[in-house]
Amino acid sequence: MATVRDIYNYIDSFAPFGTQAEWDNSGLLVGDENKVVNKIVFALDVTTDVIEQAKKCSADLIVTHHPVIFKPVSSVLNDSLIYKLIENNISIICAHTNYDKAIDGVNDILCQTVNADRFEKIDDTFLNVAVFDNTYTTDEFANHLKIRLNGSVRYNNLNKNINKIAVCSGSGSDYLELAKELNCDALLTGDASHHSFLDANEMGIVLFAAGHFETEMIAVKPLLEKIENEFKIDCILATQNTPIITI
Amino acid sequence: MATVRDIYNYIDSFAPFGTQAEWDNSGLLVGDENKVVNKIVFALDVTTDVIEQAKKCSADLIVTHHPVIFKPVSSVLNDSLIYKLIENNISIICAHTNYDKAIDGVNDILCQTVNADRFEKIDDTFLNVAVFDNTYTTDEFANHLKIRLNGSVRYNNLNKNINKIAVCSGSGSDYLELAKELNCDALLTGDASHHSFLDANEMGIVLFAAGHFETEMIAVKPLLEKIENEFKIDCILATQNTPIITI
Amino acid sequence: MATVRDIYNYIDSFAPFGTQAEWDNSGLLVGDENKVVNKIVFALDVTTDVIEQAKKCSADLIVTHHPVIFKPVSSVLNDSLIYKLIENNISIICAHTNYDKAIDGVNDILCQTVNADRFEKIDDTFLNVAVFDNTYTTDEFANHLKIRLNGSVRYNNLNKNINKIAVCSGSGSDYLELAKELNCDALLTGDASHHSFLDANEMGIVLFAAGHFETEMIAVKPLLEKIENEFKIDCILATQNTPIITI
Amino acid sequence: MATVRDIYNYIDSFAPFGTQAEWDNSGLLVGDENKVVNKIVFALDVTTDVIEQAKKCSADLIVTHHPVIFKPVSSVLNDSLIYKLIENNISIICAHTNYDKAIDGVNDILCQTVNADRFEKIDDTFLNVAVFDNTYTTDEFANHLKIRLNGSVRYNNLNKNINKIAVCSGSGSDYLELAKELNCDALLTGDASHHSFLDANEMGIVLFAAGHFETEMIAVKPLLEKIENEFKIDCILATQNTPIITI
Amino acid sequence: MATVRDIYNYIDSFAPFGTQAEWDNSGLLVGDENKVVNKIVFALDVTTDVIEQAKKCSADLIVTHHPVIFKPVSSVLNDSLIYKLIENNISIICAHTNYDKAIDGVNDILCQTVNADRFEKIDDTFLNVAVFDNTYTTDEFANHLKIRLNGSVRYNNLNKNINKIAVCSGSGSDYLELAKELNCDALLTGDASHHSFLDANEMGIVLFAAGHFETEMIAVKPLLEKIENEFKIDCILATQNTPIITI
Amino acid sequence: MATVRDIYNYIDSFAPFGTQAEWDNSGLLVGDENKVVNKIVFALDVTTDVIEQAKKCSADLIVTHHPVIFKPVSSVLNDSLIYKLIENNISIICAHTNYDKAIDGVNDILCQTVNADRFEKIDDTFLNVAVFDNTYTTDEFANHLKIRLNGSVRYNNLNKNINKIAVCSGSGSDYLELAKELNCDALLTGDASHHSFLDANEMGIVLFAAGHFETEMIAVKPLLEKIENEFKIDCILATQNTPIITI
Repeated sequence: MATVRDIYNYIDSFAPFGTQAEWDNSGLLVGDENKVVNKIVFALDVTTDVIEQAKKCSADLIVTHHPVIFKPVSSVLNDSLIYKLIENNISIICAHTNYDKAIDGVNDILCQTVNADRFEKIDDTFLNVAVFDNTYTTDEFANHLKIRLNGSVRYNNLNKNINKIAVCSGSGSDYLELAKELNCDALLTGDASHHSFLDANEMGIVLFAAGHFETEMIAVKPLLEKIENEFKIDCILATQNTPIITI
Repeated sequence: MATVRDIYNYIDSFAPFGTQAEWDNSGLLVGDENKVVNKIVFALDVTTDVIEQAKKCSADLIVTHHPVIFKPVSSVLNDSLIYKLIENNISIICAHTNYDKAIDGVNDILCQTVNADRFEKIDDTFLNVAVFDNTYTTDEFANHLKIRLNGSVRYNNLNKNINKIAVCSGSGSDYLELAKELNCDALLTGDASHHSFLDANEMGIVLFAAGHFETEMIAVKPLLEKIENEFKIDCILATQNTPIITI
Repeated sequence: MATVRDIYNYIDSFAPFGTQAEWDNSGLLVGDENKVVNKIVFALDVTTDVIEQAKKCSADLIVTHHPVIFKPVSSVLNDSLIYKLIENNISIICAHTNYDKAIDGVNDILCQTVNADRFEKIDDTFLNVAVFDNTYTTDEFANHLKIRLNGSVRYNNLNKNINKIAVCSGSGSDYLELAKELNCDALLTGDASHHSFLDANEMGIVLFAAGHFETEMIAVKPLLEKIENEFKIDCILATQNTPIITI
Repeated sequence: MATVRDIYNYIDSFAPFGTQAEWDNSGLLVGDENKVVNKIVFALDVTTDVIEQAKKCSADLIVTHHPVIFKPVSSVLNDSLIYKLIENNISIICAHTNYDKAIDGVNDILCQTVNADRFEKIDDTFLNVAVFDNTYTTDEFANHLKIRLNGSVRYNNLNKNINKIAVCSGSGSDYLELAKELNCDALLTGDASHHSFLDANEMGIVLFAAGHFETEMIAVKPLLEKIENEFKIDCILATQNTPIITI
Repeated sequence: MATVRDIYNYIDSFAPFGTQAEWDNSGLLVGDENKVVNKIVFALDVTTDVIEQAKKCSADLIVTHHPVIFKPVSSVLNDSLIYKLIENNISIICAHTNYDKAIDGVNDILCQTVNADRFEKIDDTFLNVAVFDNTYTTDEFANHLKIRLNGSVRYNNLNKNINKIAVCSGSGSDYLELAKELNCDALLTGDASHHSFLDANEMGIVLFAAGHFETEMIAVKPLLEKIENEFKIDCILATQNTPIITI
Repeated sequence: MATVRDIYNYIDSFAPFGTQAEWDNSGLLVGDENKVVNKIVFALDVTTDVIEQAKKCSADLIVTHHPVIFKPVSSVLNDSLIYKLIENNISIICAHTNYDKAIDGVNDILCQTVNADRFEKIDDTFLNVAVFDNTYTTDEFANHLKIRLNGSVRYNNLNKNINKIAVCSGSGSDYLELAKELNCDALLTGDASHHSFLDANEMGIVLFAAGHFETEMIAVKPLLEKIENEFKIDCILATQNTPIITI
C-alpha cells in the first residue's frame, strides 16, 4: 500500500524537488507523509471546489502544480484552503517549477502539444526553444495555438515568419530578452501584461500569451498517468476550467 | 507662446506631480522646458510608432500616460525611445499616477465611461468606489463593460449581483482585498493574472479585467482637450491601438 | 451564545491586539471566528499535551499567552500543533504582548504577586517599575521571589539593598540598561542568559531570573476568570507545569 | 622570552583563529603584540574582578574564552573593560569559537568531562555527538551531569533512555533540530530558554542546560596547561565563579 | 575645579551634541567624565604628534574637531590613537558637525574670516550663504581666499562675478546643487575632487577648495578662547599644520 | 569602413570591458554601434566643451576614460551631456577601469611616465607596485613627480627614502593599507583628501596626490595612437586641461 511519502518520492525521482526555483514552495505542503493513499485527485490549482471534489470521492491526497502556500502564513483560519484540507484529512503535494523544467515536464509537454518538430532545454532556465519545419505567419501561428491549446490567445502581430520560438509555460514574459538573444521569432507563454506586449513590439519579437491555465493544465493528466501506472491507485482528474471567461 | 514648462505647470495644477506614487516617474522626462510648443501629440504609451507620427506632423512635445523611463538607465543607444526623441527634438511629459488619482483623472473618467451613477475616491489609494442604480448579473455587467470600453473583457463568473464596484485603471488587482473589505461586489481593472482570478474566486468577489489599454486610453482625449482649451495649441491624438490581438 | 469572535472582542476591549509589539503575532491564529464556544481551555503555551486536554474535555477554544505561530510557516504537516488544532476542530486565540502591557495584565499581576507596595508602567515599553516599603538584601529578595513565584530563582548577588525594581515578565533582560537609568536596584524577569548576568554585574544592578513560566503563568488564571465572569462559559485551566526541571 | 604575539601564534596552531564563526570576534583584541609576557591570567570571561586579579599579580596578559569586544564600540570610557585593560597595561587574547571547535577544544573537553565513551565532531558545525556504553534514564543522566559539571542542571524529562547525545557548550539550543536529525536522545548545552524546552518536548528530545559557565569553564584550565607547558611562563587561573546563584 | 563633564556640558550649551549629523560621532569618545581637568590641548585632529604634545605639557584633556573614532572598532591595539590616549590618561572630546553648524561655529567663523559682509544659515543643512558688498572676478576672489585663509586654493575659473557664495567648511562639495539653486555664484569648501570641479563647470558655478585644514583650523582657537574664558583653565593650542605640502 | 562596433571590439581586445570594476559603467554608453566612424575625438572626460570640439570637427565618436553616465538616470533633459551627444549625433565609448588595469593601460603608463625601473600588477586590484633603482628623499620624489606629470603635487613629508611605491591612477587612497602591507614607501595616486593624508602619517607611509587629471590624461594619447594605427581613421586629441587652477 502506497503512502503519501511514496508518492512524493516517486515524483522526486523524475522531477526532483531540489531543482525548484529559489522563490518556489514545491513539496508536501499540508498533510501526513505516513498516510496510506487510496485515491488521488489531480488539479492545476487547489481551490475550494477541488477540495469539495476530493471530499466527495474520499480522496486522501491532492496533487497540484501550483503551491497551496506561496507567501508563508501567520494564521490559519477556517476560510483558508489549508484549514479545509486538514479538516477533511486530505494531504497535498505541489510539483511546480521542479515539474516545469523536468524531462517530459510542463515545458516539454507544451512543446509537444503545439506540435514542435524539435525542442531543447536552455540550461539554468525554465525555458525551452522549439523549432517547426513549417513556417507560419503570426496570425496563422496564433490560430494554430488557439486550436492546439483550446483557449483564447493574445498576441502582438508583427507580420513575422514564425518557425523558432521560445517556450515557457505560465508567466514567462521575463524571458523576452533572452528569447530575442536566442534569435527566436516569438515567445510562447501563458500570462502577459500590456507592458510586455509593448516591449515585445519595440524588440521586434512576437509574444503569444495562450493562457496560464491552457499552457499548464495539459501537463496534469500526464502526471496523473505516470503515478497511476506506478502505483495502481485510483487517480482522478479534477473537473477544472480556467477561472477566466473571455468575451 | 506656450513652452514645455507652461504645459508642465498647467498639468501640475490639476494633477500635481508631487502626488505620484513613490515608485512612479511622472514628469518632464526627456527634452527642454524652455522650448516653444506649436504642436502636441497625445498617446497612452510612447512607442516608435508614436514618435514617427509626432515626427511626421512636426510635433514638439508628446504627452503620455505611461513614463518613457521606468527603470533608470545606464546607457542610451540608438534603438531606445529616449534616443529617438532627442534625435527628433521632441520633448515628452508623462502624467501617470498623478493623473490616475486626480479629480476628473483616469479613475474618474473610467467610472463615468462605464456609466456609474455615483462614485467616490478612497483616501490614500488609487482606487474609486462606484455605485450603479441598476443591478446587473455578472454576465450582464461583463457585456456592459465590453460595450462601454470596446475591448475584450476577462472575468470570473460568480453569479453575483453587481451594483457596487471598486475601480482602478491599469493593473489594480492588488486592491482585491481592499475591494472586499469595502463590500464591493467586484473590482474593475485593466490587466490581471490567472492567480488573481483564483484569489477572486476564493474571496467571492468578481474581478473584471477590461484591458490595460481600454481602461486608460479613454483618459487621453480629455487630457488633450483640457490642454487645447487652455493653450489654443494644435493638439493631435496619436493613432494608437491596444498592442494585444485577442482571438 | 458566545462565538470565538465574541471572546476575541472581549479580550481586545481590555488588552487591545493593536498594542502588541511589532514582532509579535497575537490574535486569532487558528480556527473559525463564527464558531459557538461551549468550553475554553486556558494555558500559558499550547502544546500537544494541552491540545489533548482540550480534546478530552471537548473544548472549542484554547486561549494562551504565547502565539502558536511565531515564524510564518510554509507547510503544515501532521506533527505540527496547527494541524492538530484544526484536526480536532479547536480554535486558538493568543494574547501575548498586548496582555503583557495591559492594565491588570501580566506585568501588573507580577508586581502584585511579589507584593510590591506601588508600581507604575513606563510609557512605550513592556516594563513596570515597582517599589517596596521594606528594604531587602539581595538574598532576602531572591528568597521572597522564590516563595511568591514558587520556582527556582537565579540571580547575581551584589549585596545591594533592594526596594525599587524594574519588572518585565518573560524574557526581559534587554531592559537592563533602562532599569539602571531608572535608578532601579534590580530587574526582575523570567529568562536570562550568562552574558546578561555578567552585564548586570558590570552595571552594578541585580538581575533576578525567576522563570519564564513562573512570571507569566500567574496571569493565566486571572484571564480565565475575567472571561468566565463575562460569558458564563465553562472555563478550564489546563494542567501545565514549567517544562524545566531544575536540580 | 615570549611575547603576546608568540602566545597568539601558539593558540593559532591548535585552534586557528581563521576557523571562528562569522559573527565571532576572537583574537588579540586589546594590547600590544610585541609586549614581553611574564605572567598570564586565564578566565572564562574578562570582568572588572578578573582585571583586578591580573593587576594584583602583575600579569601582562589575560586569555579568555569570551571576547571582550562583541559589538564594535564607538567610544571607550573609563568604566569600560577595554579602558581598564589599557590603563593597567594588560593585553587580552580571546579564543572563543575557534577553541570551541578545536581538537581537544571546549566541546571535546565537555564530552570527556561527562565521561562519554566515544565522540566525534560534526563537520561545519560547533557540535559533537557523544555516545555512552551505559544507558541512563533522563533523571539519572541529569544527576550524572550535575555531579560531573558541578552546577545546577535544567532539563525537560521525557522518560527517555539516554545513550547518544549532541554536545554544544555555551548557548547551543539552535542545534535542537540537527540533534534530532542525528538521532540523538538529547542535546547537552549551557544556556537554554523556556521556548527551547517547549520545542524539545514537541520534538521528543531531551534538552539538558547544564550552565553556560559550567560547560565552558572546564576548558580554561586545559588551555592554561598547554600554554604553561609550551612557554614555562607563570600561568594563573583567575578565581571565577558562575555569575548566577540558583536557589 | 572643572571636570571633563563640565567642559562637555559647556560645549553642549552652545553647540549641542544632539544636533550632530546622523553619521557623525561627536562627544566624549575616550576618557573619564569625572576627571578633574587642569590643562587642555586643542587641535583640529588628534594625531600621535598631538598626543605627544599633550603628554609633554601634562594635559588631561584634548578637544578636537574631528572624531578620534569614526568607524566603530572591534579591537584596540597599541598603535591606535585610542590606546595611546588611555595609556597616557588623556580624555578626548570631539565637537565636529555640532560645532560646524553652531552659532559662531565653524561655518560662521569661516564667513567672518573671508570678510563676508553678511551671511545667514540655511535651515537643516551645514551650509551658510554669504554676501559681499564688493564684486570680485573669480581670480580676484581666489587670491582673496588665499590671503585670508593662508593656504593653497584650487578652483575652476568661469570668469564669473562673485558676490554671493555658499559656504561649507571641510568636505562640502555635495552642496553644489543646492548652492546653484540658491543662486550663489560659487561654493567655498575645503576638500573637493576632480569630478566635483567638472560638475561645477557644467553647472556654471565656481567651486573654491581652500583646504580642509585651512577652512576648519580657524575655528579651533575661538573654541579654546571660549573655554578658557569660562573655566580659567590652562588652554594650549597644539602646534599643528596641514598634513599636506603643495608644490 | 570602421563602425562604432569595430572600435568597441578593438578596445575590448586589449582592455576587456568585462574586467571593469563592479561599480563602473564602461562601454558604449550613448550612440549607435552600426554608425560608420570617420573621425574620433579623445578626451579624459566628456564635457560640454569637448562636445563642442567634436561638433566643430564633425567627429562621429568620442572616446573618454570617465563614463558619461555614472549614476543611472531617470530623465534626460537638454542641459545634460547625454542630450547634447544625441542631438549632435555623436556616439561615446568610455574605457575606465578596464583600461586602468589593462596591460599597457593607465597604471602601466603612469609607472612608465614617472620613470619606474620595474613594475608589476597586483592581482585582483587596480594597483601596480613600481621600483626605482635610485633612492629619493620625499621632497626629491615630489619634485620628480611634479616634473614628470606636469602639475601640482600634494604630499605628506615623512622624510623617508622612496624607492618602492604603489601606483593607482585617479582616486586610489583606499589602497593605503594594502600599500603598507606590500612594504611600499609611498602610494602615488591622483586625488586624496585631508583624512587620507592624516591616515598616511599615522601609518608611516607617504601619500603623493599628483592630480586626478595629471595621472590619467597621460593615457589618453596612447589610446588614440593605438586606434589610429589600427583603423587609419582621423583621430583628434581634444584640447583639455585640468578643471582645477591651483594657486
